[in-house]
Amino acid sequence: MTLNAQKIILNEERNVQLTVMLQAVDGEFGAIHARPAILILPGGGYEMCSDREAEQVAYPYMAAGYHAFVLRYSVKEHKDWPNPLNDYEQAMQYIEDHADEWHVKTDKIVVAGFSAGGHLAACAATIAEHKPAAALLGYAAVNRQVTTFIQRGEELPAPVEQVDGNTCPCFLFAARDDSTVPIENTLDFAKALTEYDISYEVHIYNYGDHGFGPGTSSVLTTNACARLANWQPDSISWLSEMLGYDTFNGFVEPTCPGKVNGNREATLSAECTIGYLMTKEEASPVLDPFFQVVRQIGKARFNNEEVLFKVLTECKLRNLMIVAGQPEEAITAIDQALRQIPNN
Amino acid sequence: MTLNAQKIILNEERNVQLTVMLQAVDGEFGAIHARPAILILPGGGYEMCSDREAEQVAYPYMAAGYHAFVLRYSVKEHKDWPNPLNDYEQAMQYIEDHADEWHVKTDKIVVAGFSAGGHLAACAATIAEHKPAAALLGYAAVNRQVTTFIQRGEELPAPVEQVDGNTCPCFLFAARDDSTVPIENTLDFAKALTEYDISYEVHIYNYGDHGFGPGTSSVLTTNACARLANWQPDSISWLSEMLGYDTFNGFVEPTCPGKVNGNREATLSAECTIGYLMTKEEASPVLDPFFQVVRQIGKARFNNEEVLFKVLTECKLRNLMIVAGQPEEAITAIDQALRQIPNN
Amino acid sequence: MTLNAQKIILNEERNVQLTVMLQAVDGEFGAIHARPAILILPGGGYEMCSDREAEQVAYPYMAAGYHAFVLRYSVKEHKDWPNPLNDYEQAMQYIEDHADEWHVKTDKIVVAGFSAGGHLAACAATIAEHKPAAALLGYAAVNRQVTTFIQRGEELPAPVEQVDGNTCPCFLFAARDDSTVPIENTLDFAKALTEYDISYEVHIYNYGDHGFGPGTSSVLTTNACARLANWQPDSISWLSEMLGYDTFNGFVEPTCPGKVNGNREATLSAECTIGYLMTKEEASPVLDPFFQVVRQIGKARFNNEEVLFKVLTECKLRNLMIVAGQPEEAITAIDQALRQIPNN
Amino acid sequence: MTLNAQKIILNEERNVQLTVMLQAVDGEFGAIHARPAILILPGGGYEMCSDREAEQVAYPYMAAGYHAFVLRYSVKEHKDWPNPLNDYEQAMQYIEDHADEWHVKTDKIVVAGFSAGGHLAACAATIAEHKPAAALLGYAAVNRQVTTFIQRGEELPAPVEQVDGNTCPCFLFAARDDSTVPIENTLDFAKALTEYDISYEVHIYNYGDHGFGPGTSSVLTTNACARLANWQPDSISWLSEMLGYDTFNGFVEPTCPGKVNGNREATLSAECTIGYLMTKEEASPVLDPFFQVVRQIGKARFNNEEVLFKVLTECKLRNLMIVAGQPEEAITAIDQALRQIPNN
Repeated sequence: MTLNAQKIILNEERNVQLTVMLQAVDGEFGAIHARPAILILPGGGYEMCSDREAEQVAYPYMAAGYHAFVLRYSVKEHKDWPNPLNDYEQAMQYIEDHADEWHVKTDKIVVAGFSAGGHLAACAATIAEHKPAAALLGYAAVNRQVTTFIQRGEELPAPVEQVDGNTCPCFLFAARDDSTVPIENTLDFAKALTEYDISYEVHIYNYGDHGFGPGTSSVLTTNACARLANWQPDSISWLSEMLGYDTFNGFVEPTCPGKVNGNREATLSAECTIGYLMTKEEASPVLDPFFQVVRQIGKARFNNEEVLFKVLTECKLRNLMIVAGQPEEAITAIDQALRQIPNN
Repeated sequence: MTLNAQKIILNEERNVQLTVMLQAVDGEFGAIHARPAILILPGGGYEMCSDREAEQVAYPYMAAGYHAFVLRYSVKEHKDWPNPLNDYEQAMQYIEDHADEWHVKTDKIVVAGFSAGGHLAACAATIAEHKPAAALLGYAAVNRQVTTFIQRGEELPAPVEQVDGNTCPCFLFAARDDSTVPIENTLDFAKALTEYDISYEVHIYNYGDHGFGPGTSSVLTTNACARLANWQPDSISWLSEMLGYDTFNGFVEPTCPGKVNGNREATLSAECTIGYLMTKEEASPVLDPFFQVVRQIGKARFNNEEVLFKVLTECKLRNLMIVAGQPEEAITAIDQALRQIPNN
Repeated sequence: MTLNAQKIILNEERNVQLTVMLQAVDGEFGAIHARPAILILPGGGYEMCSDREAEQVAYPYMAAGYHAFVLRYSVKEHKDWPNPLNDYEQAMQYIEDHADEWHVKTDKIVVAGFSAGGHLAACAATIAEHKPAAALLGYAAVNRQVTTFIQRGEELPAPVEQVDGNTCPCFLFAARDDSTVPIENTLDFAKALTEYDISYEVHIYNYGDHGFGPGTSSVLTTNACARLANWQPDSISWLSEMLGYDTFNGFVEPTCPGKVNGNREATLSAECTIGYLMTKEEASPVLDPFFQVVRQIGKARFNNEEVLFKVLTECKLRNLMIVAGQPEEAITAIDQALRQIPNN
Repeated sequence: MTLNAQKIILNEERNVQLTVMLQAVDGEFGAIHARPAILILPGGGYEMCSDREAEQVAYPYMAAGYHAFVLRYSVKEHKDWPNPLNDYEQAMQYIEDHADEWHVKTDKIVVAGFSAGGHLAACAATIAEHKPAAALLGYAAVNRQVTTFIQRGEELPAPVEQVDGNTCPCFLFAARDDSTVPIENTLDFAKALTEYDISYEVHIYNYGDHGFGPGTSSVLTTNACARLANWQPDSISWLSEMLGYDTFNGFVEPTCPGKVNGNREATLSAECTIGYLMTKEEASPVLDPFFQVVRQIGKARFNNEEVLFKVLTECKLRNLMIVAGQPEEAITAIDQALRQIPNN
């Protein structure tokens, strides 16, 4: 028998519990010797951990091959920060400690959080020691304005202010008409991720208000638009692109990097954007010959030598060189030259 | 915490095990005081119970609000018929005995079986004492030709021969290129259900061979057409039509009856088909006035008084009367008169 | 025969063309006497009108019952603003002039635009005289930074600066890794819509770059994430919620208003948000009794009389009164009293 | 402008019309120099050609890159067989004659028919001179019982009796509760295709009755199950597997052959099924050594030398050899030897 479900008390005093739902590996599962995992953080304003954003959220990911964990963290009288974050760190450490026994791929643990649990998941994505491989953030409270009131005056980090180049890829979703956590939270977090070149996906649905969890009819408490439950299959599809996925015959590699360009890496490269490279004087000698080509194209097609530099600020050098018909060797040569230049 | 997973030994000698995966009710789940359930019967030629057709099959139904059970029935040296069927009956009895404790709606237990487990599920649908509310049959072995060889010579019922008016609604699926259980098994079972007016749905996918289970990439062992995994969301949608479904705010009634017409009920009615009613002499006095109308329409539109009786054999009387513009009172009157006539 | 396709020259000198693709009404289409319509504005940096963002974009909407139009507006040497906007206005006027003949519901004309065509569609949504019923904006260029360079120095409106309470509902989509129109364009436009309480939906897909059009394999020129083509069925679903939809048996009313609350209407009402109503001194006499109830709940549950006012700024008064258990008559009474107060 | 729609009178006397809806090629469509096409045959009992099963059916295929044609064939007083079939042949010939001009891939013309149009499409699939590449058959009238009455006594071919090894791959769909064309028509046609090893896909939906066309809300006249409109995206997906598909960067080859095995080819091969090969004495010398291996496996695993031959009748020799661990050279050698043996 393959199901292995248990409840683990992580902290008796604060009533912190970890539900563990494991799956079989090896044997009839062929090349699957270990599995990715999802750690679910229910919402509830740090006053409770909602059952509607807990086990039922896990099942689609289990159907997709993930182990699943639900963390019921410190709430109510125990909610003082950083108690919930400490609970998260402890849970991740516990999972890591049992990774061999449970056949968990520790570099592929995804965190999913809702509302206040989304606040906690966004903290995991930004400031935690145990950084997840990706985060699913559902109508997450991330702005200063909201966090101020969740904690009734006590100091809580506003994750939107904590995003940096080490933040993990994120999948954001919410309903436009959220009456509890204003939709700006989702938009602002996406902008912060943009600033640091982090990969992400965003789905803001027409209506469904706050707290819809999986969005399925067996959980919904309110009217909702027809697409609300799409975030689960869509996030599974997104995760397979970000983390790769297991099959009976072997692992399939990811198709999308964690960052949309090379602007935050240790050295410059052909994956940096034109806009970024133009700010790097040290790169001029390497880039000038190709930039002359770009100017000629601009002049020929738009009668403006500089126009392409202005329009294509977000275009990666490699892509522009391909489109401009540069031979592969030329691209490789420039890339290698750029990789000699530290990215400060 | 809401997950309640356990393994129950139903028969130690034959190694029969029931995995129980329960879900929370009441409280945050509002009007959901009990839940429908799915009992999964893995395949394996009665030589094993495949882990690929077991717990992972359950999760999408759990996400849709079902409790889930996996029965590992008698196989190998214990497979002599009717051991597996007895295991099924025992499991259903066990669930019924714990229905109050587990909050199971005993009139909404669905059985799902694959290959040899599909044979067992089809036996449940046709000849078992504990009749399920509906059956999902995946590349099920139901023809005499196949069952003969599964049991290596011992007598096994061929479910296709056992279908009758008491058979539960069925959802059938398989791959066209099944190399183990010929696709005729699915087609023949659908024909048998047709003969007895049972509601059903059929999906035969382009390719995917035998034993694809949920059809997801984490379980598939072979190439498969792109639609193969659709049977799970499609069967959940079908079940909600056949059994209704629970929401936070209350139960939503089914939209489809278990039989496509009234031909198998205790009395005649307006839900019987034209073709069937025409064989019932006792109904002539009730029907003759309307049948004259039908003859006139046939004559006017097709220059043939009898044509509509021949074309519309499968049309229910009620529907034909609506299309023919009969007033609701006339339909009700005929329906009530027909319901006085026993259906022999 | 039902198809009625034609090309109309709107402006010979500037080569402005309107492709008209009409559908049958009445007869076998029952209650469908007129149809909604979609007007498609292809992209191309105001240098061309891309065929990949034209007729093929129209077909899914035609399958959903819409008439379709494709406008090839002024580009290249004719692109000086406001030529393209004038072309749009002329096309809308032309459609209105032929609405009876073509069976078009003029209050249900949707505009869809891509890239530079998305800029034009966003201008239609904000500043045009012929305001569409809804706008679909694909990787639209709406920020000042982008519009500056599309027009190579000439003054072009930046739609993100033009959003106000009269802007139509919008459906926004783009790819995270857009290398031509930075993803901030989509995020900023959503923020502007938020500020004016406009209904919208947003889908930002993991990767797919710029110019993916319908996102189908027959049009895509680059690698793309698996969900990229979802925006078409999703936008059709969204439109049916915003505009209602036609069936053989009659029109089905919209389920979502064009604004998420009543904050921008002529008078106050129970559809205004708590946060907004708290800024209206004139409403105090009407609201104070209920606000006392809210304070008591805050005190009882969170030991803080003001907390709910701070958390629930986006909650509509009506919804809060329902959750607080107020009788329907009380809600109606307050709503009517508020509707006597002008909303300045 | 890319749309090219026209109506062509194929036969003035019988009012036969071909609607032509073409799409652009080359230029912005890259490697797409010609396109596959779909020819739609509406239903209507040979008394009419229904507008609900005509142009609106075409649009999803056009969105997927197909040219589309709708044939309004001989009905009513002109319906005498073989008039409709002659209309079909004439239409196909007309398309072939214009293939260069219209950029049609003549080996990738799909026919789609509904009800009586499904009868005509099934005749195209079986007995026509212009054989389509694939056929989509919606609640098609194919049994003798139905065809007898469609034509009111005149002799009409029953396609279910005409299936043979030259029949094209078929995609079948209907609703379980079809009250006009009994569901046996779909099941029997699938059985006939099975007998001749033709590739196919079948979807029988829970309820939706007869004549649902595309199954979308803008066309449906009756209640229908939630999955009814899936047949269009599913058939597009199926067609891409059977015919391959075009992309900007080139053609993608089919992934599924037109026949599920090699039993109907001119010579034997490793693609023939075990069951079929066992009936061929001439193949014994080639197969006997491997068959001995199969017997040993049967004995070792099931204590029965013959069991695998009986269970695996539908298994292709190549697949069984792979599973049995035979080296690729051995498989190639046997395949080549078998290809020397004519298949009578």
